[in-house]
Amino acid sequence: MSSNLNIGPGGDVTAPTPQNTPLNQAPISLGLSRPTVPDIEEDNEDDGEVNEGDLNEIKAHLLPMVQGKLAGLVGRSSGYIESLPVEVKHNVQGLVGIQTKQNELQNKYKLECLELERKYLGLAQPLYERRKAIINGSKPATKEEVELGEEASLKDDEEYEALPKDVEASSTGIPEFWLTALRNHIGIGELITDRDAEALKSLVDIRIQYLADDTDEELKGKPGFKILFTFSPNDYFENEVLTKTYVYQSQVSFTGDFLYDRAIGTEIKWKEDKDLTTEFEIKKQRNKTTNRTRLVRKAKPADSFFNFFTPPVPPSEESIEAGDYEDEELEEIEDKLEMDYQIGEDLKEKVVPHAIDYFTGKALEYDFDEEDEDDYELDEDDDEHDHDHDDDDSESDAAPAPRRGKKGGAAGGQQVNPEDCKQQ
Amino acid sequence: MSSNLNIGPGGDVTAPTPQNTPLNQAPISLGLSRPTVPDIEEDNEDDGEVNEGDLNEIKAHLLPMVQGKLAGLVGRSSGYIESLPVEVKHNVQGLVGIQTKQNELQNKYKLECLELERKYLGLAQPLYERRKAIINGSKPATKEEVELGEEASLKDDEEYEALPKDVEASSTGIPEFWLTALRNHIGIGELITDRDAEALKSLVDIRIQYLADDTDEELKGKPGFKILFTFSPNDYFENEVLTKTYVYQSQVSFTGDFLYDRAIGTEIKWKEDKDLTTEFEIKKQRNKTTNRTRLVRKAKPADSFFNFFTPPVPPSEESIEAGDYEDEELEEIEDKLEMDYQIGEDLKEKVVPHAIDYFTGKALEYDFDEEDEDDYELDEDDDEHDHDHDDDDSESDAAPAPRRGKKGGAAGGQQVNPEDCKQQ
Repeated sequence: MSSNLNIGPGGDVTAPTPQNTPLNQAPISLGLSRPTVPDIEEDNEDDGEVNEGDLNEIKAHLLPMVQGKLAGLVGRSSGYIESLPVEVKHNVQGLVGIQTKQNELQNKYKLECLELERKYLGLAQPLYERRKAIINGSKPATKEEVELGEEASLKDDEEYEALPKDVEASSTGIPEFWLTALRNHIGIGELITDRDAEALKSLVDIRIQYLADDTDEELKGKPGFKILFTFSPNDYFENEVLTKTYVYQSQVSFTGDFLYDRAIGTEIKWKEDKDLTTEFEIKKQRNKTTNRTRLVRKAKPADSFFNFFTPPVPPSEESIEAGDYEDEELEEIEDKLEMDYQIGEDLKEKVVPHAIDYFTGKALEYDFDEEDEDDYELDEDDDEHDHDHDDDDSESDAAPAPRRGKKGGAAGGQQVNPEDCKQQ
Repeated sequence: MSSNLNIGPGGDVTAPTPQNTPLNQAPISLGLSRPTVPDIEEDNEDDGEVNEGDLNEIKAHLLPMVQGKLAGLVGRSSGYIESLPVEVKHNVQGLVGIQTKQNELQNKYKLECLELERKYLGLAQPLYERRKAIINGSKPATKEEVELGEEASLKDDEEYEALPKDVEASSTGIPEFWLTALRNHIGIGELITDRDAEALKSLVDIRIQYLADDTDEELKGKPGFKILFTFSPNDYFENEVLTKTYVYQSQVSFTGDFLYDRAIGTEIKWKEDKDLTTEFEIKKQRNKTTNRTRLVRKAKPADSFFNFFTPPVPPSEESIEAGDYEDEELEEIEDKLEMDYQIGEDLKEKVVPHAIDYFTGKALEYDFDEEDEDDYELDEDDDEHDHDHDDDDSESDAAPAPRRGKKGGAAGGQQVNPEDCKQQ
């Protein structure tokens, strides 16, 4: 494995520079000042170097543009590969062949990952059942559980004040537990209207199921998962359980990730006049012959968390190719799909496994730490324009936007793959 | 599981509104125009709703700011939780207790994920060995491998032209394979100077090893991995193998991710005057008594890919708390650590498992698709300022920045957890 290897007689042939790697040159031609590198005798092979300050500059501000340009090059044939002798090209194709086997292995790996997720969901089931019983009050928290919780709370916050010990846990459970937890998730909280909140007070459990265990013959065994929302009887709809199902494609992506195939939601059986996803407008209508007006009630779609159960439908490849959609329409659908998938993912990965942390708000802390704050810039310049219109604007605007400092210290604790192999 | 559940007599108590969920109200107070919602008789509970157009607006432009404000609230006690009757608080603490068990399970799950990665690395080993033999020419590609590769190439690109069949694969292997592959990775390519490239021509293999299998007693069995770079004898350094080791912390994060603990690199034994991580400056030095000058050679750090083997060291919590570092220093270290970890991660997850795709440049295509293009905005306003300084600037600047269109179609294929459970 680590023995000396000679890469053969061709090893020192100077190959043409690959054409698809212009990055370490490109920034310079984009107008950055050429870094000053001392041109000394000992070693003057350092042309083309970019010093670190410039590198950071590039990363923060120019890379996106460079990438934009590079993206244009992608897919073009690389002159380097084409310039290789045909004998070497055989080796290249040999590696392409071996990669197909590697990709099959990757697919198997990913499916086994999903199996592992499922196994741990099974292991967590007793804890989820216990949680449910505490929340609905059927089996209030025991002294031991409370003690364990208070220990953790004190560890988390030294100012935590212990509860009086002579009190029994309430058999009313924890009212509005799931509504509160959902509202404390940034993305989901946004979707919950005040009208929704009334209905969500009856939400008594959310759980996850993998399609491997599904009762539906069409879905059973497919890669994917289902989110089940259980409700107590309520004034809004007849359903006891609303489900949202996410089906993955059977082939993973180039980088080994599952791809979403589609999402399916339960049809909600709304009680009369209780459909939260519909609003009514009263409009005047004039009769052309009598010229008298009357009031007409007109339904229109309303924003609601419950739209989550009517997921957007991805257009087919054929309809896209046939040009059935405008670019903007496609983008809009794509945004909606992305949002829908993200919420499903967050429910599965975060809200369900950490419901209590969302209920108490503790999760918010971590959600913020997790966000890459570099993604956000406070666009302070915009505000300034209201007071300041002199000619220096162009310069102040061209300056890098202020970067928000990070909260976390630099000491260790960098996160591995923010979205890697999540809790089940 | 799905039986009707009453959440007990307390279920319909109207609880105080949680104080840490202001999101669906906040945007309005931030100056967005109040959405027009018809105030009709059938249902006038829709106060506080935000219509979808506004939601998108918020998401794209205001959410970052709102989050900034919200972040300030995080950690503050939620009035809602505190207002709960003490009997209910016992249930809350009970759930906190149960969550600690859930967290332990999550930790076990994550370690088992790593085991699974390792298992598949083992399964892929014969393919990696075969790849190495083709690249160094010791066992050129077979007819079957080439055929398999050409099939895949044709599937990928209908214009792919088959190679002549009467040619044998070269026993020179594929010269500069790894240099070319590394250069085709956007982040790594940037780090490779022309001087580095000369040395990297001798790079004959890169492979991954998990610390579970490590020979070092201190590292063996820890969660983490090692990247091994094997070189043929070269003019630059004596080492045959350079390694970079990433050690994870033993406890996963709140969201179930491994956290990096530290990185360790091989000390490179540079041949005389060949240290690529050092540059020399010639400086004049004046002797105070004789007043004569002489030339002095002064070493200073140089940009180089090989700095990868001298990773930044995270400052200790203690030194941070003692105020040994300026905020800016900490930020700089943090950026360097992040960069270092990202490169390690990409080598492990992408470059090593897909080396041929980086060599041909095919991987670039996917890397771009994978990038969330929404993260980048072409800051076109900046350019415009050079020509345009009228008073309308404030308005044009306040308008949403142009959003780059996505390349991928909307049809299915949304990616699940971009960084989820990767290929081994």
